[in-house]
Amino acid sequence: MKFKRTERIGAIVKILSDNPNKIFTLSHFTNQFNAAKSTISEDLLVVKNVFEKLELGKVITISGAAGGVKYIPKTSKAENEEFLLDLCEKISDPSRILSGGFLYLIDLIYNPTIVSKIGKIMASNIDYAEADYVVTMETKGIPMALMTAKAMNLPLVIIRKDIKVSEGPTLSMTYVSGNTSKVESMSLPRKALKPDSKVIIIDDFMRGGGTIKGMIDLMNEFGAEVVGTGVFISTTKPEEKMVKNYISLIELDVQGDKISVKPNLKTFKDEYKNEEHEVDYDLEDVLDDEDEE
Amino acid sequence: MKFKRTERIGAIVKILSDNPNKIFTLSHFTNQFNAAKSTISEDLLVVKNVFEKLELGKVITISGAAGGVKYIPKTSKAENEEFLLDLCEKISDPSRILSGGFLYLIDLIYNPTIVSKIGKIMASNIDYAEADYVVTMETKGIPMALMTAKAMNLPLVIIRKDIKVSEGPTLSMTYVSGNTSKVESMSLPRKALKPDSKVIIIDDFMRGGGTIKGMIDLMNEFGAEVVGTGVFISTTKPEEKMVKNYISLIELDVQGDKISVKPNLKTFKDEYKNEEHEVDYDLEDVLDDEDEE
Repeated sequence: MKFKRTERIGAIVKILSDNPNKIFTLSHFTNQFNAAKSTISEDLLVVKNVFEKLELGKVITISGAAGGVKYIPKTSKAENEEFLLDLCEKISDPSRILSGGFLYLIDLIYNPTIVSKIGKIMASNIDYAEADYVVTMETKGIPMALMTAKAMNLPLVIIRKDIKVSEGPTLSMTYVSGNTSKVESMSLPRKALKPDSKVIIIDDFMRGGGTIKGMIDLMNEFGAEVVGTGVFISTTKPEEKMVKNYISLIELDVQGDKISVKPNLKTFKDEYKNEEHEVDYDLEDVLDDEDEE
Repeated sequence: MKFKRTERIGAIVKILSDNPNKIFTLSHFTNQFNAAKSTISEDLLVVKNVFEKLELGKVITISGAAGGVKYIPKTSKAENEEFLLDLCEKISDPSRILSGGFLYLIDLIYNPTIVSKIGKIMASNIDYAEADYVVTMETKGIPMALMTAKAMNLPLVIIRKDIKVSEGPTLSMTYVSGNTSKVESMSLPRKALKPDSKVIIIDDFMRGGGTIKGMIDLMNEFGAEVVGTGVFISTTKPEEKMVKNYISLIELDVQGDKISVKPNLKTFKDEYKNEEHEVDYDLEDVLDDEDEE
């Protein structure tokens, strides 16, 4: 099948966009579209432009034997702020306050469009260059953790609250949840992580940090290192969290029965985290490299 | 900012692809790209071609006041078969069989790339034209249910196994899990579903169908109607399930300690479910309609 220029470009955008952080070789596209390398190379320059002009992320060229192009999702600061302000307005609706001071949020944090955006924001503000997995604990954080894992192109690992018989030998631990001050348990199958892994923790909510501290301890039991932590909402109090290095997208302040939420703009102070690890070679160089093999 | 033809087409593909089943008006694109309607109209014809040529789904034009274009994800039969055969090979790995005859599958069913594809296959083979929600029960089905909800552009509802204090008034029910023959409970906040909703149920595994039967009963308690059910894996035995109308993507047969899995090809007998509900108007007609308002 023959493709027109415009069709190839549309198709390449679709393929890259559906597969963030996955490297596609130039040969992949020359085969798929039955086109010369120089043609695909020109197409890719246009595709790069599209992503940059619309601030939808970066298309990066990687040189060498494992080289090719990949799409790195990125959200702009202005876009983050607009999205989070809108979410904060929704969260502030008084009808969301439940008895006990809890907030009804599941319609938001299970919404595919919202969590998809949260995933992209997490991937734009956490350095995952070295990471092997995204880890979360059931249940409410799963949708946003999955979308973060999708944006980072990493497998997702879900810590369970009870020991499941159907997942083989399991490592379990107890921790104190700041929420209830109760001793709770978490468990993960032995096979879930490879030795010496590096992981990113994603969760929906952090008050004192007890749950995430427990997750970090569990990771250490697996010989894994936590290299980044992102939570959707953190509370202003207690100021001292049990976890030191984390980002949160929204800050929640509770004063008696009055709540206020605002985007945690200090999270977005750095322009962009995952770019410095990539060297953006000239497309022609990549072509030359491939030709030499 | 001015965009070239190729850039506009790349951008439109990205926007539609990121937002399946969401209607975008032509004015949306004319504003974003500072271009005439006739120009955008031509761009959209190219975009339609891209999706059709690559069998990535359909771009459909909807006439009238709420009209515009939307992208309906669709997977081809050949693509489904290749993907599911590959998955079946992975599932058949003898090291996955755990004591008790369980299968270790969480590395597959939590994988963002795999569940994203499963979601698109579910959306291609379940009629969701009337549906208001995708519903699943925690935990293992959540990733694929979220991706199905994303493909269908519907909110996701997650049934919990225990009563959570933090989600307000909750309706709970007991059911008998075929898996363990134990009485278990499921619960859902009162606010989770609007009255008279129609829902699609997505779950990872079905043996006798007891759990899904329980979910259907719970939906009825909410005054909601189940209009479609999709499971990832169903077992060949028992042949009589407690649920009548469902699709499953993979069939699992267990004979003693020997397991065999194969794609459930009868699921894909119909070409495509969600097309007949759309009338594909001519783009020029849509333009005329918009002009008249």
